Amino acid sequence: MAEHPRVLCKSLWNKIMPAEAAAAMISTGATIATSGFTGAGYPKAVPLALAQRAVEDKTRGKPLRLNILTGASTGPELDQALALTDSVAFRFPYNGDATMRERINTGAAEYQDMHLSHAGTLVRYGYYGKIDFAIIEVAKIREDGSLVFSSSVGMNTAYLDMAQKYIIEVNEWQDERLEGMHDVFNVPGKHGDRKAIPVMKADDRIGTPSMPIDVSKVAAVVISKLPDRNGAFKAPGEDHKKIAQHILDFLDGEVKAGRLPNSLTPLQSGVGNIANAVLVGLNQGKFENMTSYTEVIQDGMLDLLDSGKLRIASATAFSVSPEGQERFNKNIDRYRKQIILRPQDVSNSPEVIRRLGCIAMNGFVEADIYGHVNSTHIVGKGIENGIGGSGDFARNSAYTIFMSPSTAKDGKISAIVPFATHIDHTEHDTMGYVTEFGFADLRGKSPKQRAKEIIEKCAHPDYRPILWDYFKRSCKSPSAGLQSPHMLKEAFSFHTRYLETGDMRPKK
Amino acid sequence: MAEHPRVLCKSLWNKIMPAEAAAAMISTGATIATSGFTGAGYPKAVPLALAQRAVEDKTRGKPLRLNILTGASTGPELDQALALTDSVAFRFPYNGDATMRERINTGAAEYQDMHLSHAGTLVRYGYYGKIDFAIIEVAKIREDGSLVFSSSVGMNTAYLDMAQKYIIEVNEWQDERLEGMHDVFNVPGKHGDRKAIPVMKADDRIGTPSMPIDVSKVAAVVISKLPDRNGAFKAPGEDHKKIAQHILDFLDGEVKAGRLPNSLTPLQSGVGNIANAVLVGLNQGKFENMTSYTEVIQDGMLDLLDSGKLRIASATAFSVSPEGQERFNKNIDRYRKQIILRPQDVSNSPEVIRRLGCIAMNGFVEADIYGHVNSTHIVGKGIENGIGGSGDFARNSAYTIFMSPSTAKDGKISAIVPFATHIDHTEHDTMGYVTEFGFADLRGKSPKQRAKEIIEKCAHPDYRPILWDYFKRSCKSPSAGLQSPHMLKEAFSFHTRYLETGDMRPKK
Repeated sequence: MAEHPRVLCKSLWNKIMPAEAAAAMISTGATIATSGFTGAGYPKAVPLALAQRAVEDKTRGKPLRLNILTGASTGPELDQALALTDSVAFRFPYNGDATMRERINTGAAEYQDMHLSHAGTLVRYGYYGKIDFAIIEVAKIREDGSLVFSSSVGMNTAYLDMAQKYIIEVNEWQDERLEGMHDVFNVPGKHGDRKAIPVMKADDRIGTPSMPIDVSKVAAVVISKLPDRNGAFKAPGEDHKKIAQHILDFLDGEVKAGRLPNSLTPLQSGVGNIANAVLVGLNQGKFENMTSYTEVIQDGMLDLLDSGKLRIASATAFSVSPEGQERFNKNIDRYRKQIILRPQDVSNSPEVIRRLGCIAMNGFVEADIYGHVNSTHIVGKGIENGIGGSGDFARNSAYTIFMSPSTAKDGKISAIVPFATHIDHTEHDTMGYVTEFGFADLRGKSPKQRAKEIIEKCAHPDYRPILWDYFKRSCKSPSAGLQSPHMLKEAFSFHTRYLETGDMRPKK
Repeated sequence: MAEHPRVLCKSLWNKIMPAEAAAAMISTGATIATSGFTGAGYPKAVPLALAQRAVEDKTRGKPLRLNILTGASTGPELDQALALTDSVAFRFPYNGDATMRERINTGAAEYQDMHLSHAGTLVRYGYYGKIDFAIIEVAKIREDGSLVFSSSVGMNTAYLDMAQKYIIEVNEWQDERLEGMHDVFNVPGKHGDRKAIPVMKADDRIGTPSMPIDVSKVAAVVISKLPDRNGAFKAPGEDHKKIAQHILDFLDGEVKAGRLPNSLTPLQSGVGNIANAVLVGLNQGKFENMTSYTEVIQDGMLDLLDSGKLRIASATAFSVSPEGQERFNKNIDRYRKQIILRPQDVSNSPEVIRRLGCIAMNGFVEADIYGHVNSTHIVGKGIENGIGGSGDFARNSAYTIFMSPSTAKDGKISAIVPFATHIDHTEHDTMGYVTEFGFADLRGKSPKQRAKEIIEKCAHPDYRPILWDYFKRSCKSPSAGLQSPHMLKEAFSFHTRYLETGDMRPKK
């Protein structure tokens, strides 16, 4: 029996074992549900050991095939290693790893892309069958056996509620002083048991700092010391700065019109460089005393907390650069008062988002001229990541803004197209598009009125004439009435041209 | 000054006037926001008078053009009369009238089709500008000036909150004993003011039986005696009965698997004959002590209340046949204990729907092989009605079921297609398709796994070979990876074939 300074519950000392021993408990065909959201707080040692075992299993003709449920994306020790060894039969609800993506797009792994607020809920309803193991990374196990999560909460509460057995990874790399930052609140799966989620403002803490568990379910405790893996952010490029400025100008207009207070309403921003550029812009802007009710704390949000522009940040995970991580650890005692980490069915709760009237800002892959948005699929390539929380926020926020540069691949791909090749957000859910060229305000507009706004304000000038041509000819000979005029034979003509010539623009 | 037995607030007696006088107050360019949801509780006398005036205005070269916001659909005195006279510049958030539909599809009127839970909310946010008049039908005005709504609540609360002036239609045709059936609860538009909507079970009353108003805003009180207009229901046809049976079998399986109690969870069912067939089936089935949290009370729901199978029905409106109306009036004192009429931002609240874990059953126009659903647009024709509340329920319920016969037009149109020509519900929101051939359970499945289930269980046998052909060839030469395999040049081939030959099936 080994003791460990971060395993304060003595009855668990005899469960401490090497990652390989814990991984050995998991049989092929198992469904495992893990912690992890962005590259934060995912288990590292056990998945890596599992993948290493998979190599040997394969050589013996007994391939390891698992169903893997997570909070959202994870890091290379989990998604990359298990995808690399072809160990993933089914993946849910989000993936951001390139190797896993390749396996999904070649059909080697099945993937269900799901709204993040739903992931744990659906598991709790029993729709994913028996969960054999929850593999959860923690910063510490308390005396009473309750778990102090690490740099994300994700779906930990649901998965611990539903799993038959637990494997707990205690990660010494995670700062123990994360304790007190989490706000653990359980949304019951049993119908009839759910009450209101009592978050009335972004600041509200409604739960407990650690999660009580049935310690008899703990099959293994593994000690690790592996860092989270989140990439660096780029300094905003010119286009990203322009996008950010259009959003700031729009919000300023809303304040002037009396529709928003100067502190705005709680901000949600997706992950990535454009979102970070918006946060940088907000830090240089005029709004004060802001709050954030979002999924992920990025570097730009730490800047806002540091400057005092942002009063509070509610999220479910971190996605900070290595530099951001250093800054975070240095100031963790202050950040603990400013940051709340919630389960993703609370951070992304439609109930709370609608109540707060959030400002949702998410990227798009492509968007059509009538207001439908593709967040996931890239033409000629396949699925990129997944819808993530963008649907949770876009469907319920007071402002639902989608942003992207107007073109990709040196202008060869237009982000504005006649018909999107995959639709994740419908015309009923989108209120604004923004590109480096401008902000298309879609509120209170019919599809045809939107088309004019979108083509003129957002499309790249190279594409405006061919978008106008499509729209005008569609209005003259529509396949299906004039509410959403289309010419079905040409609806994907931009895409098929790109697939044939490498450029969405016709040859001159 | 005239008194009236249903206008108990004496200070309003001097506002009683003919419909024509009230209509005369409304100028061209105005935005009017009315009561009404399905053919119930919409104002009748003033819209009719407005349309009659529009004819004369037109002959004088001063056409009347209005922006019209309602709860949902209305009756002929409103939508038909105003569309007929070309008086509608903009319509929001739902239409079910054939004449208005024709104006929308020819481009004479602009239409924004919106989730019904959002309609009032967006108006409260100020996105539709100044609301000149709220025109609200009531059963009675109480001594304190508060309004006893009639056969729907719809967006009355939001529109009365936001309008500059009110025109109140007191409809003597409506039974005064509706008083006590409404549950008026205001969801504030001001950010920061919203609290939880405290409906914890379908039975909960959280508001008041009438709505207090600022009587100084009342510009006119008009007495009318015009009936609501709702069509008769057909006895379920064979296909509808089969669809209903598949749903009952599925629910039975869920009870047996322990995922649902024998009383199920609160039922939501869309409007129409298929939905009514499901209700008929439930009345003959084994489930007891059920509840309903839905938009509309239909005849089938009255049957369920009468038989005692259904304990409580929460909705925002009635849509009962003339026979159903008679039965309703006869038993109104009992129904008042069993039926709760709520504002549609409560009846359709994502917060409440998710909390209750509703069973959502809505019709579809067409659905693709990967889980995307078109609820609104018919190929070669245009928009039919609108998304209504189907998105509110599909996005948040514990069960989201979409139902339709597998074909239309004597088999010439397949309801299952490779790619839907309009998408209202995405793959992330749909859990089950049902046709007369079977129930496709989409839960926990990737798009490719769904395709197999959908083609085999739901498609008409005539269409299975060509759907399989599309799917299999798409998997061999996908335009965009194997997550959602498509051949973009053929994605709409069923539709273009139909437009060219009148049949989605290729000629033999």
